[in-house]
Amino acid sequence: MKNSLNRELSAELLKEKDYKPFENATIGNPEIQRTAPTVRVSTGDGKLVDSIADVVKKTLKDGMTISFHHHLREGDFIFNQVMDEIIKQGFKNLTLAPSSLTNVMNDKVIEAIKAGVITNITSSGMRGSLGEAVSHGLLPNPVIFRSHGGRARAIENGDIKIDVAFLGVPNADRLGNANGMEGDAVFGSLGYALMDANYADKVVLLTDNVVDYPNTPASIKQTQVDYVVKVDQVGDPDRIGTGATRFTKNPKDLKIAKMVNDVIVHSPYFKQGFSFQTGSGGAALAVARYLRESMIDKNITASFALGGITTPIVKLLEEGLVNRVMDVQDFDKGAADSMKNNRNQQEIDASWYADPDNKGAMVDQLDVCILSALEIDTDFNVNVMTGSNGVIRGAVGGHQDAATAKMTIISAPLTRGRIATVVPHVGTVVTPGESIDVLVTEVGIAVNPRRQDLLAAFKQVPGLPLMTIEELQQKAEQIVGKPKPLEYTDRVVALMEYRDGSIIDEIHEIK
Amino acid sequence: MKNSLNRELSAELLKEKDYKPFENATIGNPEIQRTAPTVRVSTGDGKLVDSIADVVKKTLKDGMTISFHHHLREGDFIFNQVMDEIIKQGFKNLTLAPSSLTNVMNDKVIEAIKAGVITNITSSGMRGSLGEAVSHGLLPNPVIFRSHGGRARAIENGDIKIDVAFLGVPNADRLGNANGMEGDAVFGSLGYALMDANYADKVVLLTDNVVDYPNTPASIKQTQVDYVVKVDQVGDPDRIGTGATRFTKNPKDLKIAKMVNDVIVHSPYFKQGFSFQTGSGGAALAVARYLRESMIDKNITASFALGGITTPIVKLLEEGLVNRVMDVQDFDKGAADSMKNNRNQQEIDASWYADPDNKGAMVDQLDVCILSALEIDTDFNVNVMTGSNGVIRGAVGGHQDAATAKMTIISAPLTRGRIATVVPHVGTVVTPGESIDVLVTEVGIAVNPRRQDLLAAFKQVPGLPLMTIEELQQKAEQIVGKPKPLEYTDRVVALMEYRDGSIIDEIHEIK
Repeated sequence: MKNSLNRELSAELLKEKDYKPFENATIGNPEIQRTAPTVRVSTGDGKLVDSIADVVKKTLKDGMTISFHHHLREGDFIFNQVMDEIIKQGFKNLTLAPSSLTNVMNDKVIEAIKAGVITNITSSGMRGSLGEAVSHGLLPNPVIFRSHGGRARAIENGDIKIDVAFLGVPNADRLGNANGMEGDAVFGSLGYALMDANYADKVVLLTDNVVDYPNTPASIKQTQVDYVVKVDQVGDPDRIGTGATRFTKNPKDLKIAKMVNDVIVHSPYFKQGFSFQTGSGGAALAVARYLRESMIDKNITASFALGGITTPIVKLLEEGLVNRVMDVQDFDKGAADSMKNNRNQQEIDASWYADPDNKGAMVDQLDVCILSALEIDTDFNVNVMTGSNGVIRGAVGGHQDAATAKMTIISAPLTRGRIATVVPHVGTVVTPGESIDVLVTEVGIAVNPRRQDLLAAFKQVPGLPLMTIEELQQKAEQIVGKPKPLEYTDRVVALMEYRDGSIIDEIHEIK
Repeated sequence: MKNSLNRELSAELLKEKDYKPFENATIGNPEIQRTAPTVRVSTGDGKLVDSIADVVKKTLKDGMTISFHHHLREGDFIFNQVMDEIIKQGFKNLTLAPSSLTNVMNDKVIEAIKAGVITNITSSGMRGSLGEAVSHGLLPNPVIFRSHGGRARAIENGDIKIDVAFLGVPNADRLGNANGMEGDAVFGSLGYALMDANYADKVVLLTDNVVDYPNTPASIKQTQVDYVVKVDQVGDPDRIGTGATRFTKNPKDLKIAKMVNDVIVHSPYFKQGFSFQTGSGGAALAVARYLRESMIDKNITASFALGGITTPIVKLLEEGLVNRVMDVQDFDKGAADSMKNNRNQQEIDASWYADPDNKGAMVDQLDVCILSALEIDTDFNVNVMTGSNGVIRGAVGGHQDAATAKMTIISAPLTRGRIATVVPHVGTVVTPGESIDVLVTEVGIAVNPRRQDLLAAFKQVPGLPLMTIEELQQKAEQIVGKPKPLEYTDRVVALMEYRDGSIIDEIHEIK
């Protein structure tokens, strides 16, 4: 069967898992019955546990769903310690449901899969050796990839039922009041982890910093926590800002960032009180710099900046150019450190950030959003999940969610090495073309034909290099040539959920 | 049938409502399945509604359960406006489930009951004309009185299913992000209302102060709110501090307060890092003054002060004598105003404050608690609900909840006018004697025989007027004589829940 984007889907698999094929990006006004955890009542005394081994023994059973957060990204020291103990104790058939997986976790996940400890995974993404292994069929069941908003939705409606959440925190008191703002492993917002704390049946905090009771502000509350485990070190906050969040010095990236800024400034959305999300990755970070200059020039301030937050965004807040920073995750230590001192940097959970199934998420109020792409096709569908070789090497993150902005800009180089970014058909659709309004590459800007209003506005601007997306695709093809078609088996190794829970694409095993 | 306190209960009524009789104050470690609201999904636009009439029409149906908070106490302007409109539109058979009812609401509740609009009530309490009317049989069904913690429990497990919550707030943005800290009607903590915001199917905010989006800090979040209604005036914060929260100048009250302080200071709990709740009412407020002097004298600071918060408590925080104020409600404007500026004054919801069915409430960590009483009997059972004439004229509040403190002190005059406070049997048991450790009156101090450890400690203290509670009861009787027994009908007008949901007593119609 095919969904509305003409992506071939396994009818059998969809039926087995009770999934609908993707139709469109409209959410509408359904009524959703939320779910809630089972709570083991206590006075709160006796939550302190000596060792990870003990708490794993106390909480886990075969077949359960376990979760972790990825706020410490490549600086996380918790995941491997806990998973190591779970493997040692010989649990089987677990579902791993973290907010995302980073490279530092890969070896341990692969070990757990090989040992039959992990048999199912749902995540925002995976990269490196784990992506390779899963793409080659290591995991017995298909991974389910969900956006940050999609994960929040799934947790809230029970599609993901977390039995035990293992959450690393830079501080906690003996009852579990905790935040991300103080201690050696400060990572700022606990945005994704707040979902786990609120909905998991059992919540285990792991910290290197047990502080006096009561610990406030309490992003995670004692009413949510079952156990507090003292560990040697939660993580290395200096390694939050690696990987997808490196700051660019690449002239091509800077050129794109400048063009992205031109698009924003000449759009109807650049006005007093506008809002934006720049995100992480490549050129996106540099946009904040150019945008700052434009805002000062035009005497415009923003009502809010959203999303994964970086130091340049926090600087805008400090300068008064941005009124509020709505912070679901901090992409570097500077942004993380800022949250403690700036009351206008508001911690938000993943539901508030992006859950499509609630009474309004921040992304629904977003004017301008800049996102990246591994590939974008002539229908403006975007792939941020699989590489040109078909291997899993990315993450949905908030891509599908933030793309609901009034103007979503994809910022990407036309080609990367010998690989085209603009292609006839993306390997994997993560975000549907109907959500994407503008593509900015270093050679030209393409506006989605659905947005004739934007096209008309940009045509008035001298010097904006407007092109069709077909022209950009052909330019890319002229540079790098036509790639050989990829070869896959019939086996589905991953299902790509759209944020509403429908299936927007599937990923097959590499032949 | 009788419960463990020998209180006669209607077996038929308990069976009909699936209630258990009270056994004891121990909660234990049951597993509780939490409940969750049904959410009507939207982008969050279009929440602003012009009038109360419109929002009542959009949300209400016959037979529903509606709720309000009482944070503005006698200064509330919301309840009457909304209820007036509900009566006008002719809805029937509603259950009224506010966090509590204050005198300013009485006329409108009586009108609604007479019109058949309200047929069931659950509340923390009721006073004045409404208490009189209900005691004389006005309401067709028994009121269910619940403590603040008991209400949180009932909301979280579905015993109270709120269909529509009408919540007055001093500020909100157009999507419903709101707090209690800014605006003309500042009342500080939204502690009780946070339960309604989190669990009601439909949440309506009413505010006189629609502020720029996004409004932070957001105690109530846009993800919880369906409608925002602009009204002329939410309330008068100068009238929060009236009624049960007046500051005493009465010499007898001051004497009791001094004795309460002596008991605290000479107890084993008065040590570095101790915690306490003073509450509101009569002498309790004055205790904070004496306690301050003792803390300075002995160079002791408290880890936290809990509960309904007053200006004297906030001053202790400012002086560094208290490390954290854990604030479920502010009893006066000074305390309310302070929350905005002092990050160590932490807003907590009613569940965190006192819900017995969670993973640890603040009350479970409380060392010392001072509570008031209308009556206390020789078994140390306390009545804060019915007067000596049998009429409903009080509120459970956090009484049952905070009484779980390691040392709970009842502070009360031996007699009030021609009425004894210490009696052979209280008219209505609200808090069981097993929770009460010490009674302090102006003529003597009685220690619960269950607490031989405390008795032994206090015997070492020269000048503490220790007596048995029977001696105090006899002294009271010598002063005021034996009252005539009250006469009731067989009809039950109210059920008194213990915080665990069992029935600790029932209140009968006055003959």
